[in-house]
Amino acid sequence: MTSESSKTANQKTDQQLHKEKMQKQKERVDAQIAKNSIERGVAILMTGNGKGKTSSAFGMVFRALGYGQRVGIVQFIKGAQESGEVNFIRQHCDNAEIYQMGTGFTWNTQDKAADIAASERTWVVAERMLADDQFDLVVLDELTYMIGYKYLDRSKIIDAISNRPREQSVVVTGRGGGRELREVMDTVSDVKNVKHGYAAGIKARRGVDC
Amino acid sequence: MTSESSKTANQKTDQQLHKEKMQKQKERVDAQIAKNSIERGVAILMTGNGKGKTSSAFGMVFRALGYGQRVGIVQFIKGAQESGEVNFIRQHCDNAEIYQMGTGFTWNTQDKAADIAASERTWVVAERMLADDQFDLVVLDELTYMIGYKYLDRSKIIDAISNRPREQSVVVTGRGGGRELREVMDTVSDVKNVKHGYAAGIKARRGVDC
Repeated sequence: MTSESSKTANQKTDQQLHKEKMQKQKERVDAQIAKNSIERGVAILMTGNGKGKTSSAFGMVFRALGYGQRVGIVQFIKGAQESGEVNFIRQHCDNAEIYQMGTGFTWNTQDKAADIAASERTWVVAERMLADDQFDLVVLDELTYMIGYKYLDRSKIIDAISNRPREQSVVVTGRGGGRELREVMDTVSDVKNVKHGYAAGIKARRGVDC
Repeated sequence: MTSESSKTANQKTDQQLHKEKMQKQKERVDAQIAKNSIERGVAILMTGNGKGKTSSAFGMVFRALGYGQRVGIVQFIKGAQESGEVNFIRQHCDNAEIYQMGTGFTWNTQDKAADIAASERTWVVAERMLADDQFDLVVLDELTYMIGYKYLDRSKIIDAISNRPREQSVVVTGRGGGRELREVMDTVSDVKNVKHGYAAGIKARRGVDC
């Protein structure tokens, strides 16, 4: 056997081994796909202390809008500062309705009673969307803090999510939220902060951070 | 003191305590903001086994587009299946350029040599974007798998990310990627799967999963 033909034989083996391994993996994947028979909206929680929770929710907003679906977005806390994704939606997306609590962070307002009143007004909008089957997707950005601060009643939030229309998906973002909320969600991702440019002295940046 | 006035006194105290606590927190936050003086693009890695990595990258795409920034998106692996966010961008976003490797998962192609050739063609597009300061944001979706499979050379990826224009941000997504990639990134989020509706038998759903 020449060195060339030996090399070709080895390459073939590598290709063949790869093909066999991938064929087995395909069978596993296909079996899981065949097993999954439940068709309904999903409830997703993006939690944890790392970057990417709100941006993930908005990625799903555009995923839904790309199929012509109708989206409702309620932002707790946020709205006092400009954000690119909200700019974009206001300019380009008739199929999305957005409501912002707009108070800013608790350390800026420094007024608990006013924050509670604002969170209750904001919840009214969220509750209306969660009861309306015209919304294919509802995003409740930073809702978890309202539970953590005890600004909103946990059980009424869990009831509204549990009793939403069957085909409606919901995405909740924010750190914490508690065990009861996690239980009612179908999918929970815990976004861990491994490192953050902000801690290394890099300013928050338009287009990625806000 | 009547019960009413006692209640009012307690509420005042609660409000006051809240205000003092928030004032201290505001001072800490403001000090960090003042300390952060570096203004440049950031490199972000969304990794881990949980849901939300690609959607987070696309959330940042719309964040950038909301400020009129120019965005480049390269999707490794993906493109064989329809996705809502790509539909949306193709229909509505002139300011975004998108390139998809388009082969689908390795267990579908089952052809290593063809996958490597496709990944190299796709990398040419990524490398061109990473060298072009007209792009404010570059997304390299599922690039980590190309490193993990050894389809692309790790060091040329790290060089291209390190040497990109100073004002350009980059988002890389995908599981793994290795220590050297993490080191060159400013921000790393590890998206942990706590639970996933898919494992509970719910079908992947348009508008949230694809």
